Amino acid sequence: MNFHTRKWVKPEDLNPNGTLFGGSLLKWIDEEAAIYAIIQLGSQRVVTKLISEINFVSSARQSDIIELGITATEFGRTSLTMRAEVRNKITRKSILTIDKMVFVNVDIEGNPAPHGKTEITYIRDQFKEEGGSA
Amino acid sequence: MNFHTRKWVKPEDLNPNGTLFGGSLLKWIDEEAAIYAIIQLGSQRVVTKLISEINFVSSARQSDIIELGITATEFGRTSLTMRAEVRNKITRKSILTIDKMVFVNVDIEGNPAPHGKTEITYIRDQFKEEGGSA
Amino acid sequence: MNFHTRKWVKPEDLNPNGTLFGGSLLKWIDEEAAIYAIIQLGSQRVVTKLISEINFVSSARQSDIIELGITATEFGRTSLTMRAEVRNKITRKSILTIDKMVFVNVDIEGNPAPHGKTEITYIRDQFKEEGGSA
Amino acid sequence: MNFHTRKWVKPEDLNPNGTLFGGSLLKWIDEEAAIYAIIQLGSQRVVTKLISEINFVSSARQSDIIELGITATEFGRTSLTMRAEVRNKITRKSILTIDKMVFVNVDIEGNPAPHGKTEITYIRDQFKEEGGSA
Amino acid sequence: MNFHTRKWVKPEDLNPNGTLFGGSLLKWIDEEAAIYAIIQLGSQRVVTKLISEINFVSSARQSDIIELGITATEFGRTSLTMRAEVRNKITRKSILTIDKMVFVNVDIEGNPAPHGKTEITYIRDQFKEEGGSA
Amino acid sequence: MNFHTRKWVKPEDLNPNGTLFGGSLLKWIDEEAAIYAIIQLGSQRVVTKLISEINFVSSARQSDIIELGITATEFGRTSLTMRAEVRNKITRKSILTIDKMVFVNVDIEGNPAPHGKTEITYIRDQFKEEGGSA
Repeated sequence: MNFHTRKWVKPEDLNPNGTLFGGSLLKWIDEEAAIYAIIQLGSQRVVTKLISEINFVSSARQSDIIELGITATEFGRTSLTMRAEVRNKITRKSILTIDKMVFVNVDIEGNPAPHGKTEITYIRDQFKEEGGSA
Repeated sequence: MNFHTRKWVKPEDLNPNGTLFGGSLLKWIDEEAAIYAIIQLGSQRVVTKLISEINFVSSARQSDIIELGITATEFGRTSLTMRAEVRNKITRKSILTIDKMVFVNVDIEGNPAPHGKTEITYIRDQFKEEGGSA
Repeated sequence: MNFHTRKWVKPEDLNPNGTLFGGSLLKWIDEEAAIYAIIQLGSQRVVTKLISEINFVSSARQSDIIELGITATEFGRTSLTMRAEVRNKITRKSILTIDKMVFVNVDIEGNPAPHGKTEITYIRDQFKEEGGSA
Repeated sequence: MNFHTRKWVKPEDLNPNGTLFGGSLLKWIDEEAAIYAIIQLGSQRVVTKLISEINFVSSARQSDIIELGITATEFGRTSLTMRAEVRNKITRKSILTIDKMVFVNVDIEGNPAPHGKTEITYIRDQFKEEGGSA
Repeated sequence: MNFHTRKWVKPEDLNPNGTLFGGSLLKWIDEEAAIYAIIQLGSQRVVTKLISEINFVSSARQSDIIELGITATEFGRTSLTMRAEVRNKITRKSILTIDKMVFVNVDIEGNPAPHGKTEITYIRDQFKEEGGSA
Repeated sequence: MNFHTRKWVKPEDLNPNGTLFGGSLLKWIDEEAAIYAIIQLGSQRVVTKLISEINFVSSARQSDIIELGITATEFGRTSLTMRAEVRNKITRKSILTIDKMVFVNVDIEGNPAPHGKTEITYIRDQFKEEGGSA
């Protein structure tokens, strides 16, 4: 799994107990999954259909740096299933895991439409220059 | 199931396709579940532990009024399991359903702690005056 | 008066003194009144016309759960007048009261338009199942 | 009355009808009044006590530039009463007027405390250089 | 330079170290410059083209009141160059200075368009009544 | 340069002209640079000191996916200088470039403190599995 987007946990992201608000985390991972699906399916018309089994493994605190990872696990005819993980960027400790996030490609009326993709598209050149720093 | 909190879908809540952003919806329902758990368990130290099977049944649009419903389904020794639904306030059409949202009561060090509750606490007088108007 | 929407006071809602920012509270109650007016008048074209006498009775603090209540007090030909209260969900202590919030139903050009309603519409079945839990 | 703070009405500030959300406006004017009171009373411990009669004179739209004005109208022993107006920066058309915003100076326990001020403090040099451009 | 817009530094504006988040500050000053350019150029179609040399002179803390100042330094054919400063409203201590903020007037297709202005337009009457209070 | 964090341009990020608000973009890149500096310097006490020459090369629109790239260009005794670029994830078209973002490592009193680093730390294993997909 590749981790791309990072977040710096700020006061505005906290719940009243002073740890990262679960709702903020869910909002972040849903956006990251949507971005991943749009890139993989080459379509901007994708909608979240189902999210299954979200485990809140550990909590994050103010000033933590966390990173969001998504990977495709199954290409359906109109859907894309992904697995997600959020972890602490420094310690690599897992914060949240999601078994399945299913997004569906839809046509202009919102009906499921075939996306024509069957496997992950690699965008290798993005990281080849330096090997992936910091 | 009782529906309490309402939201008016505003431009700031939309995804780039012009429908309610799934991440905003998840943030709202997580806060509502936390509130419900705090009230039921009589404890402010509750954490989201697991969310299982979220179905995005239909989408919401700008200017829709939606309402969030939560109900307890199981009282564990340290946990509370809830079922959730988000629906359109006017049409009653379901927008999102969640089978299980498990919150855990924790002590000051974050370890699971018994909450001592075994059933739903009704706060009946809250609605008895007028029967529940709009 | 019925209380529906709840809020969990988070760091993002605080003023620099660490109590709930009055401006956030006003934003919440204005949205709640708009939602109530839309439901009662059966019209999405309602605008805030006048708010009269807002009393900040007591303050709220981080992690408090508060609830917002609105009730119709007068149906004009084009307007709806409401009374509002915000209170602590647990202690029932009043936080803010508003004597009059006047919303006006408008036509597509923004001019006041008759709404045809003369009394509160009850949506009783919403609460009949369990009597209003949590 | 002097107008200081300006806002550029952006999509995030709109209600679902596409005009400036009244709640956003109330949040802005409450912050502006708090700032004015803090400066005039020379105290950071000021709380909103009462707001009386808010008239929503006209609406604002996306891309409008609006400005917020506050002026002190009465110095009590522990309180400060202000009048407020929000208007379109370009057309000078009034958007909202508030007759009275009463803030109270409080001690560390939140009890009203004398502020020792009896009149408006002018900070003339701030504008003397150029006469107030743009 | 005239200082108009004020901000009250709230928890939502802080970085994880508890001081004003630089990114929030940049967002505020960019909006203020856009407003200034729109007023001076009499055009709503202005875009940020270049910002040169931003010095973070000192930091701001929660509950500080800060003010934003902008002044035009050069009128090009299609552009407007401004200088900006953010300072503590009470102590007058400088927080941030920007040498050049260049905005460009564009036509409906986004191409640079002459704005026809050559000097600062004063809006003197705005401040003449009271000399500029608090 | 490596690009990590991605953003999906949503209505809440737009200026009144319907393109990505420059201030939002600046807020995002400042957070990304802070994250990069914290990781490279192994210190959470880093502050933005200077940003030099920001070019807004092209604009982004609603529903665009953009990615943020940062790379270290110079390690001072107490500072870290970085170069930044924001580009469209799909078209690779540059949106914003920043020549120099200088962050300083500070001690607990806020004074510059040596960070002991002299070169980029690679975290190669992060991307080695799949070569950098999606």
